[in-house]
Amino acid sequence: MKIYVINGANLNLLGVREPEIYGSETLADINAAIAEKCKTLGINCEFFQSNHEGAIIDKLHEAWEKADGVIINPGAFTHYSYAIRDAISTLAIPVIEVHISNIHAREEFRHKSVLSAVCEGVLCGFGSMGYLMAVDYFRAV
Amino acid sequence: MKIYVINGANLNLLGVREPEIYGSETLADINAAIAEKCKTLGINCEFFQSNHEGAIIDKLHEAWEKADGVIINPGAFTHYSYAIRDAISTLAIPVIEVHISNIHAREEFRHKSVLSAVCEGVLCGFGSMGYLMAVDYFRAV
Amino acid sequence: MKIYVINGANLNLLGVREPEIYGSETLADINAAIAEKCKTLGINCEFFQSNHEGAIIDKLHEAWEKADGVIINPGAFTHYSYAIRDAISTLAIPVIEVHISNIHAREEFRHKSVLSAVCEGVLCGFGSMGYLMAVDYFRAV
Amino acid sequence: MKIYVINGANLNLLGVREPEIYGSETLADINAAIAEKCKTLGINCEFFQSNHEGAIIDKLHEAWEKADGVIINPGAFTHYSYAIRDAISTLAIPVIEVHISNIHAREEFRHKSVLSAVCEGVLCGFGSMGYLMAVDYFRAV
Amino acid sequence: MKIYVINGANLNLLGVREPEIYGSETLADINAAIAEKCKTLGINCEFFQSNHEGAIIDKLHEAWEKADGVIINPGAFTHYSYAIRDAISTLAIPVIEVHISNIHAREEFRHKSVLSAVCEGVLCGFGSMGYLMAVDYFRAV
Amino acid sequence: MKIYVINGANLNLLGVREPEIYGSETLADINAAIAEKCKTLGINCEFFQSNHEGAIIDKLHEAWEKADGVIINPGAFTHYSYAIRDAISTLAIPVIEVHISNIHAREEFRHKSVLSAVCEGVLCGFGSMGYLMAVDYFRAV
Amino acid sequence: MKIYVINGANLNLLGVREPEIYGSETLADINAAIAEKCKTLGINCEFFQSNHEGAIIDKLHEAWEKADGVIINPGAFTHYSYAIRDAISTLAIPVIEVHISNIHAREEFRHKSVLSAVCEGVLCGFGSMGYLMAVDYFRAV
Amino acid sequence: MKIYVINGANLNLLGVREPEIYGSETLADINAAIAEKCKTLGINCEFFQSNHEGAIIDKLHEAWEKADGVIINPGAFTHYSYAIRDAISTLAIPVIEVHISNIHAREEFRHKSVLSAVCEGVLCGFGSMGYLMAVDYFRAV
Amino acid sequence: MKIYVINGANLNLLGVREPEIYGSETLADINAAIAEKCKTLGINCEFFQSNHEGAIIDKLHEAWEKADGVIINPGAFTHYSYAIRDAISTLAIPVIEVHISNIHAREEFRHKSVLSAVCEGVLCGFGSMGYLMAVDYFRAV
Amino acid sequence: MKIYVINGANLNLLGVREPEIYGSETLADINAAIAEKCKTLGINCEFFQSNHEGAIIDKLHEAWEKADGVIINPGAFTHYSYAIRDAISTLAIPVIEVHISNIHAREEFRHKSVLSAVCEGVLCGFGSMGYLMAVDYFRAV
Amino acid sequence: MKIYVINGANLNLLGVREPEIYGSETLADINAAIAEKCKTLGINCEFFQSNHEGAIIDKLHEAWEKADGVIINPGAFTHYSYAIRDAISTLAIPVIEVHISNIHAREEFRHKSVLSAVCEGVLCGFGSMGYLMAVDYFRAV
Amino acid sequence: MKIYVINGANLNLLGVREPEIYGSETLADINAAIAEKCKTLGINCEFFQSNHEGAIIDKLHEAWEKADGVIINPGAFTHYSYAIRDAISTLAIPVIEVHISNIHAREEFRHKSVLSAVCEGVLCGFGSMGYLMAVDYFRAV
Repeated sequence: MKIYVINGANLNLLGVREPEIYGSETLADINAAIAEKCKTLGINCEFFQSNHEGAIIDKLHEAWEKADGVIINPGAFTHYSYAIRDAISTLAIPVIEVHISNIHAREEFRHKSVLSAVCEGVLCGFGSMGYLMAVDYFRAV
Repeated sequence: MKIYVINGANLNLLGVREPEIYGSETLADINAAIAEKCKTLGINCEFFQSNHEGAIIDKLHEAWEKADGVIINPGAFTHYSYAIRDAISTLAIPVIEVHISNIHAREEFRHKSVLSAVCEGVLCGFGSMGYLMAVDYFRAV
Repeated sequence: MKIYVINGANLNLLGVREPEIYGSETLADINAAIAEKCKTLGINCEFFQSNHEGAIIDKLHEAWEKADGVIINPGAFTHYSYAIRDAISTLAIPVIEVHISNIHAREEFRHKSVLSAVCEGVLCGFGSMGYLMAVDYFRAV
Repeated sequence: MKIYVINGANLNLLGVREPEIYGSETLADINAAIAEKCKTLGINCEFFQSNHEGAIIDKLHEAWEKADGVIINPGAFTHYSYAIRDAISTLAIPVIEVHISNIHAREEFRHKSVLSAVCEGVLCGFGSMGYLMAVDYFRAV
Repeated sequence: MKIYVINGANLNLLGVREPEIYGSETLADINAAIAEKCKTLGINCEFFQSNHEGAIIDKLHEAWEKADGVIINPGAFTHYSYAIRDAISTLAIPVIEVHISNIHAREEFRHKSVLSAVCEGVLCGFGSMGYLMAVDYFRAV
Repeated sequence: MKIYVINGANLNLLGVREPEIYGSETLADINAAIAEKCKTLGINCEFFQSNHEGAIIDKLHEAWEKADGVIINPGAFTHYSYAIRDAISTLAIPVIEVHISNIHAREEFRHKSVLSAVCEGVLCGFGSMGYLMAVDYFRAV
Repeated sequence: MKIYVINGANLNLLGVREPEIYGSETLADINAAIAEKCKTLGINCEFFQSNHEGAIIDKLHEAWEKADGVIINPGAFTHYSYAIRDAISTLAIPVIEVHISNIHAREEFRHKSVLSAVCEGVLCGFGSMGYLMAVDYFRAV
Repeated sequence: MKIYVINGANLNLLGVREPEIYGSETLADINAAIAEKCKTLGINCEFFQSNHEGAIIDKLHEAWEKADGVIINPGAFTHYSYAIRDAISTLAIPVIEVHISNIHAREEFRHKSVLSAVCEGVLCGFGSMGYLMAVDYFRAV
Repeated sequence: MKIYVINGANLNLLGVREPEIYGSETLADINAAIAEKCKTLGINCEFFQSNHEGAIIDKLHEAWEKADGVIINPGAFTHYSYAIRDAISTLAIPVIEVHISNIHAREEFRHKSVLSAVCEGVLCGFGSMGYLMAVDYFRAV
Repeated sequence: MKIYVINGANLNLLGVREPEIYGSETLADINAAIAEKCKTLGINCEFFQSNHEGAIIDKLHEAWEKADGVIINPGAFTHYSYAIRDAISTLAIPVIEVHISNIHAREEFRHKSVLSAVCEGVLCGFGSMGYLMAVDYFRAV
Repeated sequence: MKIYVINGANLNLLGVREPEIYGSETLADINAAIAEKCKTLGINCEFFQSNHEGAIIDKLHEAWEKADGVIINPGAFTHYSYAIRDAISTLAIPVIEVHISNIHAREEFRHKSVLSAVCEGVLCGFGSMGYLMAVDYFRAV
Repeated sequence: MKIYVINGANLNLLGVREPEIYGSETLADINAAIAEKCKTLGINCEFFQSNHEGAIIDKLHEAWEKADGVIINPGAFTHYSYAIRDAISTLAIPVIEVHISNIHAREEFRHKSVLSAVCEGVLCGFGSMGYLMAVDYFRAV
């Protein structure tokens, strides 16, 4: 089993940007924890981050051929990128949307995700543990 | 550690009602799986289901004194019960909102939860496994 | 054939409350007329009224096992109770929504029913005769 | 007693158009059933169908002088013809709005009737039997 | 100078319909008063009333060739007939919109005219005198 | 008979400001024409202009005791001054709202008058002649 | 004179829940203060609190027979319970709506009360003294 | 193969009305060009124009029996005629919606077509050539 | 202790304007009652009324230096005067908003106050007694 | 004559993604058909596809210097890319917007194009033939 | 060169009111800084502040004759004074809108200025330096 | 001191695109003027332009480490790029939003900036001088 872990805009700054909201872990820390968990469970995982919407779409297209599942934290693309939405709906494999913070407890514009309707499941507010919970789900189903 | 698992309106019919959306597991099946997992993890859990909004509020008030966390699937109360919202925001303990189906892929009125803003985290679309993922979160934090 | 006749919030005050809108018949009067008509037609009927949303949901669940059809006048629950909506959509038997007054000729908030989409048919503005017309429909189909 | 039965836009195609929604009865079939019922009850009835909004208004004006009641299924005029609304509100005799299908369970634009507020009562979702139920109402009141 | 006086849906019932709003003058009374005034002023006038939107459009097209101005009371077409709007905007001659009652003091849907933007001027609330005031305007300009 | 002619914000600049919309007549020119017409008709008239909402309200209160009718062109106060609206609705005498330009053919915000519902009649788009038409109306009724 | 003092959802937790908003008085403290004031004024008062919407409706129906006035703090039911609204509009006796905090200075959803239109008066932001002010009003009128 | 070419409200004035938007070709010119193209391609075509919504509906019903496809430019009916929409959705043959001008570059109300959802394809902004492109499509499929 | 009692637009006409809504007491009557009550309680009070928004703002600025509290009935300024709102939010002393009638039971535009969010408390529907209740509040806190 | 044919997000997956909506032709197939047609007509064409909004903007800027026209299927960028809109409005050459499916018959968010207002013409629902129809238009004008 | 510097409602309290938002400079301080800068640049400047909308309009009219430019901080009039908007659009000289705080980072109602569309430029969030930047602009153009 | 000057989508075409709105200066001209001014003031500046949202985000991240302030003209990204918004809110250094034209005087969609709330200040309508004014601000604070 292989899963892609894709992080979108500004998530490269995790642990730096607004730590009172996102905590002090860096993206590298989080990816390391995911990698470790995957290793234990015999899951193959690959990491990708970009601030470019197009690059994320390209990666999702690649996933379609190479992966069995995708965990995506789209960052702010969540709220307007219908192009990423179409890329997700294209995939025959399940995609899980993860947000580190509880987006419903923040600014109004963050309450609506244009992606959720085409994802298999959505997780928010569990901090970096949200990624690990998504891995667990892939293992279980 | 003790957690309350609260299910709201119509969830007593799980496994019966619209199985193409919610699957064929009954609530008893799900609770059994949660209980088993909790036992393994040394967590004490208590189950409650009601179709009465007021009874759910009363139970949440009770949780405030007796539990360390709450997992709640409010059913359709999700979309209008500001009274349950206030009950949740009262609690000093974390509350996790779980939906079995992906509410964002269903009717328009299901896309908005009036409760999410006062919960710690939100999970949807993972089937009955969502409850177990919430248990995992409580164990981990 | 057995039908349930369920009345919601404040309908116990029929004949008392705002008679210029609802007429002077009491709920007992109406139920008597329904019972008489059902007797003539060989239909078994059972009456229920509650001001508690949860009690109505419980009764609808019961109907699912015991009745062949439901006539419901939800009172003001009509306009916001998505929990009752889910209870209705659960039932495999037909449900008919009845309003004594013409809700479209009254306050703005009464123009929208959140239940109609999951009912078989909707009747309003026919006074207490609306219940009898619904009985006729059940007899005919 | 005399009643007019008026059908609006596209209802001449009943039994032909989208039978999965409207059933396979033709308008002639329905009118025959109404006529038969009226005959039994000693009610005089007259039928009219037009795809022209103006012709329906003219017929309503005529009804004002010649009939004791009107049963109208306005078809899609339901959703925008304020001119028909004014024609109905002019009449001193009662008008009943009938829809064969449950308009609340269909496309968003069909949920709103601009006519209901000036009709005596509204019926939808009972198939062609809705017309007969309206006849019953006229007989009874 | 020649002007057309066009009345739309249901205005043939003036003096009959809801006299507490429109007064007891009939359309014939009003037209007689207009004709008399026009005669005094040496204006040629022609009257037209129809409940058919299409007939009004045809008449407006005719006015384009034969008249120097149009006074129109569109009745309820005011609120949705973009087809009449286009017919008016086609004319090179001025069109004045008249309403007998004050449409802003009535139901919400009457507050918006889709025609006003393409008319030269708009008058409402002056009773049948509104037509005469429009004639005065044509004489003066 | 006595009438007040009240002009609101920025109308002192008439003939100067945006002549392509309002024409080149000054307010003095218009008032002179109104005065002349009133003289002919034996009507007593008084003129008032202010850029101060409060001064217009005070003048309306005065009209309540001293005048038989008011012609008001509120300028931009039309679109938000609920205080002027209340002052108008207080008066037992008729008030006519006049706009020189056709407000429905201009910016969106000018399409809605918060005053019209409490005025007797409304006139727009007739240039300065609109004031004279209002005088005619007062003479006639 | 007899008045009912009814408190809705979550108000049993007053003095506990979010004291920075509601103060540290418990509901028992407040009721004691009301009772004392009523005693001084010779008013008979009865207290009721419930987290169940239906129970509040039942109590309002009872008030209709037994009390001369009602003071109600509906808690979050304020914002959606049209069923409580109907129960209030049924009563021939005056009902006063009280909120301890200033609901207009809090979350958007708290700004709208669906009950205020059918109450005699509304008070908010005066802390627990709001109940006493309502008692004063009943004494005075 | 036979196609109907139907033009709606005000299109009889093409080449006359607002030529800066629609060009100077008359409807006769356009129809001649279509006829010529159809002749070349061996397609039988029939032309119809009306300012009457009902007449267009009648013609669409006729097309259902006699034609293999319809090209319709509904004029302003585009924006509100749900009755024409239902007539189109009735047809088993493909219908193509054509607009001469680019409706999205004009007034706000022209941006929304209530017909497009039930047409096979939509074309706008290509001038009279749009009709010919539609003919090409029919030939090709 | 010193309080300012400020009344806004049109309140000088109290007892005159629409007595079925506001009662027959004049503003002088009300102020006399307030003055008498204040005297009894040893409170110094000063009265101010203006139809000029700016004058009310100036008075509020003055209050900031000279008074311990303000009771304001802003009249229609309630619904749009963000300038008065800013003046209130500037004051370090408490401001109480009073309305004589129940604004929630009247026209739609009266339901929203742009001032309430920056006031300490809000009272409506208690007639002139509302001012006295506000005095009581100042005495008590 | 030279035209650019630009395809946006996810269109590289044509023939693969949701074939029930877009058909089974690949983008290569479509481009081959366009190239062949262009060759016949003596038109020079160049193809470009990208999932990167910025790359499409760059290409449009290039077109400004090198091409006589552009055919663009923007994919989901249609619904939010005001940056592409500005790039199109910059070009002095005509741009035609093409959609393979009928976007008005799909999800709500696809009904609105932010690009159409600045394109010369818009085509949707004609499958891959839409591109060829656009080529025809360029040849003809 | 002469410029008017106009400050609207509540700006006389600058340095006093909510200093965490507006800083501790008084309006006198700011005006002194502007005067000094203007002196250096050889610009003649005149200062005006009022809490009266009408007075600001009068001053703008005066500016039309006496000044070459206007710098205006309208305070809360920004959000609703269409009368000030009309006064600005009347002026042939440029008007610059200045806000000391960043209005887009504050309450929702402050995000919209009804004046900006008729000003030459808009500045916000630069503290009192915003006025000086506007002076610089006038000097430069 | 070092500042970044970042220009977004389509600004590379300045001086070319719609010169009636943006003037005839090219971006190179503007940057030269900024560079010259910075040189005089001893400020180090760096220029960047891209039509790629992702590239702008990357540059903003770089600024976080290397610059003391950012001047950004985001072009059309202003209206929807929540990803750029997040990148700006991440920076500890001040960011100033500049628009050459007055965006409030143009199309509706340009009136709303999703970035302004997280910028220090906003400037629009000052032409290319806006950039220089922003430089002045950085020098001053």
